[in-house]
Amino acid sequence: MTVGVPRRIAAEFLGSAGLAVVVIGSGIAAQQLSTDVGLQLLENALVTALGLTVLILVFAPLSGAHFNPVVTAVDALLGTRPWADVVRYLPAQVAGCVAGAVLANLMFGLDAISWSATDRVTWPHLLAEVVATAGLVVVIFALVRTGRAALAAPAVGAYIGAAYFFTSSTSFANPAITVGRMFSDTFAGIAPGSVPGYLAAQLVGGLVGWLAVRAFFPARTEDAVA
Amino acid sequence: MTVGVPRRIAAEFLGSAGLAVVVIGSGIAAQQLSTDVGLQLLENALVTALGLTVLILVFAPLSGAHFNPVVTAVDALLGTRPWADVVRYLPAQVAGCVAGAVLANLMFGLDAISWSATDRVTWPHLLAEVVATAGLVVVIFALVRTGRAALAAPAVGAYIGAAYFFTSSTSFANPAITVGRMFSDTFAGIAPGSVPGYLAAQLVGGLVGWLAVRAFFPARTEDAVA
Amino acid sequence: MTVGVPRRIAAEFLGSAGLAVVVIGSGIAAQQLSTDVGLQLLENALVTALGLTVLILVFAPLSGAHFNPVVTAVDALLGTRPWADVVRYLPAQVAGCVAGAVLANLMFGLDAISWSATDRVTWPHLLAEVVATAGLVVVIFALVRTGRAALAAPAVGAYIGAAYFFTSSTSFANPAITVGRMFSDTFAGIAPGSVPGYLAAQLVGGLVGWLAVRAFFPARTEDAVA
Amino acid sequence: MTVGVPRRIAAEFLGSAGLAVVVIGSGIAAQQLSTDVGLQLLENALVTALGLTVLILVFAPLSGAHFNPVVTAVDALLGTRPWADVVRYLPAQVAGCVAGAVLANLMFGLDAISWSATDRVTWPHLLAEVVATAGLVVVIFALVRTGRAALAAPAVGAYIGAAYFFTSSTSFANPAITVGRMFSDTFAGIAPGSVPGYLAAQLVGGLVGWLAVRAFFPARTEDAVA
Repeated sequence: MTVGVPRRIAAEFLGSAGLAVVVIGSGIAAQQLSTDVGLQLLENALVTALGLTVLILVFAPLSGAHFNPVVTAVDALLGTRPWADVVRYLPAQVAGCVAGAVLANLMFGLDAISWSATDRVTWPHLLAEVVATAGLVVVIFALVRTGRAALAAPAVGAYIGAAYFFTSSTSFANPAITVGRMFSDTFAGIAPGSVPGYLAAQLVGGLVGWLAVRAFFPARTEDAVA
Repeated sequence: MTVGVPRRIAAEFLGSAGLAVVVIGSGIAAQQLSTDVGLQLLENALVTALGLTVLILVFAPLSGAHFNPVVTAVDALLGTRPWADVVRYLPAQVAGCVAGAVLANLMFGLDAISWSATDRVTWPHLLAEVVATAGLVVVIFALVRTGRAALAAPAVGAYIGAAYFFTSSTSFANPAITVGRMFSDTFAGIAPGSVPGYLAAQLVGGLVGWLAVRAFFPARTEDAVA
Repeated sequence: MTVGVPRRIAAEFLGSAGLAVVVIGSGIAAQQLSTDVGLQLLENALVTALGLTVLILVFAPLSGAHFNPVVTAVDALLGTRPWADVVRYLPAQVAGCVAGAVLANLMFGLDAISWSATDRVTWPHLLAEVVATAGLVVVIFALVRTGRAALAAPAVGAYIGAAYFFTSSTSFANPAITVGRMFSDTFAGIAPGSVPGYLAAQLVGGLVGWLAVRAFFPARTEDAVA
Repeated sequence: MTVGVPRRIAAEFLGSAGLAVVVIGSGIAAQQLSTDVGLQLLENALVTALGLTVLILVFAPLSGAHFNPVVTAVDALLGTRPWADVVRYLPAQVAGCVAGAVLANLMFGLDAISWSATDRVTWPHLLAEVVATAGLVVVIFALVRTGRAALAAPAVGAYIGAAYFFTSSTSFANPAITVGRMFSDTFAGIAPGSVPGYLAAQLVGGLVGWLAVRAFFPARTEDAVA
């Protein structure tokens, strides 16, 4: 199926909006309905795992279903996607996450935009974002480069759902969703002042992940690996 | 496997009854056994995700396993199902959901019919139903139109389970189950006075979803897409 | 792979023991570690869903992985298994569930055998066991008779995990595990006096399920159905 | 895909580190965020199920994704892997788990190394470790020896996640992660004094599992079994 550039960009926008709705909307519901913070995060994590899996399934045939500038950039670094796509996708990814944050706010009867006041930057959290983003890159490209791209949807959903707990930062691992989360002063939000640190850590994580993919999966193979 | 019309209608009836048992029964159990409302919804959501997946697996070869008039109608709008099926399926879907609600009530020792007193209509909730229904339509037909109908069962289960949390309305997204839920004054119920608003929002959501499917997946392809 | 009768019987014994360990062991842990009864049941249900899926995957190539006399009997009723297998499997299934109950008790430092004091028989619970068992039979044979037996493991796991919540009886749906659960006076236990009622309801449910399978899936097809 | 020995060893190291991050990191988060101990274990178990599945998917094409000396040793006992691999993998598996424990500690702002003070050895717990390890071995090699190695990733993840609850020991089932867990005085930790007992029980469990695999799956078949 050949998909034109406008449709691919629109797919990244809509999928990124869906991701923000899933992440932020479930965070709002969890915070409103549960008292135990771990239970709130469990609800947020399981919903993100399921919702992200579905979003990737839906949009993968159109745009690749990145919803994440780091993923698109690593794809370009690996030589399997033109750099032009990074330029095309990035604004759609960021705008989509912002639009999704607004939609989540409105669905829950909140102001369309409420800047988050949740400061998140600490050295351990930045380390966690490096780990989370590097891991995400390895998961995606390990599967793609061994002929198992069809498993990326459930694998990425499972990875991110798990990483909400196994990293201290709750694993943003995505500059676009990091920007989008600024716009909701709720469970999944991040204060604007914390965003630059998270973005920097995610870029470092992307590079670490890219190096790991090059080292462990140097050649792309089209053969399925059981 | 060719399946005659009566068997297809019976399959929609039985599957819709199963859906109502899953949704309402697990809601009753959750409300009786747990105190935290978020935990109740988590139990309800996970059971719905698993149960709906299984129901679609079982009935897909017979009727397509819609259990939802919006899905059948969009199928007809897209030209991939005769409008006669909408007329045939709709009564079975609604009657099935009502029968399932009664059966759930009886299994838990409640009156066979108890009208729900849960008012649910607010503007944010109606917006949420539009989003939830549009998303459901996109998920189903994105998979069908890219040769991946076999993934619809787990994808729809995952989508609905997640949407219980990421929408404020807990994602009814289905006129038949909305009617059925009137008949149980329990966790998953909806007051009759709230039903028309929900149905209207679901119809709007169905149309939005149909337009999105036409825009993003204009041509049906028989080729599997990884 | 041809598997001799002794190995098939041993597989049913070991798999049934595994099922009892999963169900009863996780019930004990849940009861010891959590205070909210709904959360206890959620833990029990999710563990059963995962554990039962794995057990069926492991033992399906050997014995068919029934672990349940109702399933074996319906297979014989449908003409796809000799009645001799019902006679061979039933003692192994029951003995396996008892052995697993004892092992679960020992792993948690309890007496090897402690008769359950949990009375469970009420009319709604018996209705629930009919529904639960009929549903289980439909799920299994719908998949088998449409060339999708490979999906039985996750589908049965998902079904039983969901049915813990959507039925009021927590869905025993299996005479062998019902007998085994007598031997542990813990979360998943059942008082001996309640066992005959549950067994009768399960037999009725098996017959209902058999009739539904005959009506909806009259011919076995070897073709995979998407 | 042919993978050289250094890359295979590095894969075992990195995957084992990932396993320790998943297990210990999610244990720390669960303990910090939730009050109910059962809920803590549920969070820990679900994250481990998802994370371990992903790790096996990623590293299986490189090293087989054992992350566990017992698994490698049973593979050698069965004659399907050279004993040299046991010698090569074991140090990488242990060092990886220790490195992952340190990384988890650092991500959560704890001392790089904090010796666990959690005594775990009781006779029931040792019995549980025997059961847990034997079961793990049976799950893995049942799938491998019936042509279904592609299912090992989700099956092992599901098995371990379930075994956290259905065994009293929370199912370490792996000497490498047992050693790694000494290095974190948090939810998933184990006091050094309890390690020898656990290792012994895991060795016994590995032998029991090996005997069961030999008895039930004596011949390796390359044919896929539905």
